[in-house]
Amino acid sequence: MDKKLPTEPYKGVRDFYPEDMAIQSYIFNTWKKTVETFGFERYDASILEPADLYKSKGAVNAEMVNDQTYTFIDRGEREVTLRPEMTPTVARMVAGKHRELSFPLRWYSIPNLFRYERAQRGRLREHWQLNCDIFGIEHYTADVEIIALAHQLLIDFGATPDMFEIQLNNRAEMSQIFAGLGITEPEVINEITRLNDRKKKITTEEYETALLSIVGDTALVNQIQEKLNCQNDTNEVLEGLKTLGINNVKIDRTIARGFDYYTGTIFEIVDTDPSNNRSMLGGGRYDNLLKMFKDESVTGIGFGMGDVTMRDFLETHNLLGAHITKTAPTLVIIPTDSDRNLDSQKIAHLFRQREVKVSVDLSNKKIGKKISDAVNRGATFALIVGPDELNSGNFTLKNLAFETEESGTIDTLLTYLISHTT
Amino acid sequence: MDKKLPTEPYKGVRDFYPEDMAIQSYIFNTWKKTVETFGFERYDASILEPADLYKSKGAVNAEMVNDQTYTFIDRGEREVTLRPEMTPTVARMVAGKHRELSFPLRWYSIPNLFRYERAQRGRLREHWQLNCDIFGIEHYTADVEIIALAHQLLIDFGATPDMFEIQLNNRAEMSQIFAGLGITEPEVINEITRLNDRKKKITTEEYETALLSIVGDTALVNQIQEKLNCQNDTNEVLEGLKTLGINNVKIDRTIARGFDYYTGTIFEIVDTDPSNNRSMLGGGRYDNLLKMFKDESVTGIGFGMGDVTMRDFLETHNLLGAHITKTAPTLVIIPTDSDRNLDSQKIAHLFRQREVKVSVDLSNKKIGKKISDAVNRGATFALIVGPDELNSGNFTLKNLAFETEESGTIDTLLTYLISHTT
Repeated sequence: MDKKLPTEPYKGVRDFYPEDMAIQSYIFNTWKKTVETFGFERYDASILEPADLYKSKGAVNAEMVNDQTYTFIDRGEREVTLRPEMTPTVARMVAGKHRELSFPLRWYSIPNLFRYERAQRGRLREHWQLNCDIFGIEHYTADVEIIALAHQLLIDFGATPDMFEIQLNNRAEMSQIFAGLGITEPEVINEITRLNDRKKKITTEEYETALLSIVGDTALVNQIQEKLNCQNDTNEVLEGLKTLGINNVKIDRTIARGFDYYTGTIFEIVDTDPSNNRSMLGGGRYDNLLKMFKDESVTGIGFGMGDVTMRDFLETHNLLGAHITKTAPTLVIIPTDSDRNLDSQKIAHLFRQREVKVSVDLSNKKIGKKISDAVNRGATFALIVGPDELNSGNFTLKNLAFETEESGTIDTLLTYLISHTT
Repeated sequence: MDKKLPTEPYKGVRDFYPEDMAIQSYIFNTWKKTVETFGFERYDASILEPADLYKSKGAVNAEMVNDQTYTFIDRGEREVTLRPEMTPTVARMVAGKHRELSFPLRWYSIPNLFRYERAQRGRLREHWQLNCDIFGIEHYTADVEIIALAHQLLIDFGATPDMFEIQLNNRAEMSQIFAGLGITEPEVINEITRLNDRKKKITTEEYETALLSIVGDTALVNQIQEKLNCQNDTNEVLEGLKTLGINNVKIDRTIARGFDYYTGTIFEIVDTDPSNNRSMLGGGRYDNLLKMFKDESVTGIGFGMGDVTMRDFLETHNLLGAHITKTAPTLVIIPTDSDRNLDSQKIAHLFRQREVKVSVDLSNKKIGKKISDAVNRGATFALIVGPDELNSGNFTLKNLAFETEESGTIDTLLTYLISHTT
């Protein structure tokens, strides 16, 4: 006897059976619909990228490149990486056609991304992420637009503004704040920024100790904390969002974002439910991304939003309604025996030409079982096809939900079905 | 000066700029629409699979496993393969929930697949493939359905039956033919089958020499060729397709299919245009796929259809109309200056709530340039937002295609626009 293979997927990735795929498709379709009302165009690329794309200074944080990417040598001795995030790819694409593209660009993509993570809850090795970017608009209203889009994405899933909070910061403003405290060395600012990024995950004491070891002065530690805690800060992006009626937003000076490439606005959206208290979405403005490829600069602002955190948010707030079920056929055609299968398939063709979703039951089960199978699959209608029906041309269409019946020619029943499904 | 990175993608894979993505989306959407009218449900899985999945005898042909997969060792010492085809994955998934799933299943997926190929025209290292399978129906009308679906997929792109031909064969019938010639050893039959798979790519002389070296008897070589050339063969699948009005189909005894796991019907669809004379789609029936995982057997029949060959077919027959262009906004809102950007964004929100695709021009270009940009982007309407409009509440909507104008309140213009776009 042969040894059997396990049926589990590779560790840390997911199989999408039709039930799960229905939810995934619902999330992707809702994303697509909302971003396209903002005039965004879709792009895509391969998951395979030259490994060098992630080694350039400032592209991704060092931890990810060293420990968390899938990188391997191909059979042609090229070093390849499974993309861990989409921004380097889109920067490469924009740089590649920089002269031909007509700016501004509003581009989106729904790529799958790979990180080699230790397996733990919610930390998968592959996830999908909606990426939206506006390239080529410096004006702060582009920041307002991208955040308004992020906001609308959640609203369009049925969320209300109390379910989430937009936390806003600005790297340039942070530099000014640090300059006001006499801190101007970029490496020191980066160290404080990275510490701030971890602030919510460590105790106040741990934070203060780490901050002291960076700046070496207790008075300065206190001054920094005072500035970070300032509740009354505002800026034009915040005011712009309020003008658009978006009020679930505040300045949070501890928002740091992991990536080094941001230069202006940075933001996150967090779930306000204590049971799912984490960042769902993050992004910011960057000006120097193309510099890895060209001596050109294009300003951009964008964000990424993961499918796993999105689904957690929807489940936490009961926004995944029972209506999101796998696709059921509208009509199941039931041959009385296998010799009527071909006749049933001919009839199915007529319905399909009118875009009706039709499944023909080709099994050798009894009629009663075929009908109950159709009900279990969630079909709305069933049509029996037997010798009597074929000889007389008179068929019976069962409405499975209402347990009613309609009789007539195929033409009559087709018209009836279409008028009762749209 | 830093060394600049190249902007090309990794060798053998494609970037999808919005123009290309529009075509890719058109192909995927058309596939999706057609297969769903046949009652198929979508599933998906990760591109990462345990390498063992492809090493089992009969899973994939040996050449692919040894020379053509992307296989590497992950940081946890697991051997991982980027899936080269979807069938082993779907077999794994079906085996994994064999007891819970309600058969028959009609499942489809549009996965990307990876093969390490030497770079040459049309031979990419990553491509997408529509995979459709019916599991759990033995009756030959399931074979008819899956081939009728493949046929309909091409028809729904605007193809006519003369543009392609369905070539049909059957592994079990081939075994009978070989048995009639006294050839019963499975390894010999496999060798002949693999040779037949290459028949169209080699000369008749090369074919005969190779066949002779397998069977060792010139008389037998002639008998085999006679059987393979038999033009009048028929079977119930062929007759079933003709009953459904599908006549661009013939039995071709040389159709072999690369994979060893087929057990019954096998088929290919080829482009009849001499300039694109190749197989676009192939599939067949298999009964033993689950045996790698379980002591259970489920019969299945399916096919795979690639995006690259699909696009080549559509281009060869001029079926990619000019209407397949990247998504343009229906409306571009044009602020007269940047101080009107926020007001324009507020107005955009009203249109977006009615599912209108709206882009707000946030640049600091002059109004005339903004209008010509909107025209170039393919927008249908433009709305000017300046101090006069905001004060009076009276706006002007330009129909860019017809060069007409409509004036009124935002409400009036919204109603007008919606009635003129649906």
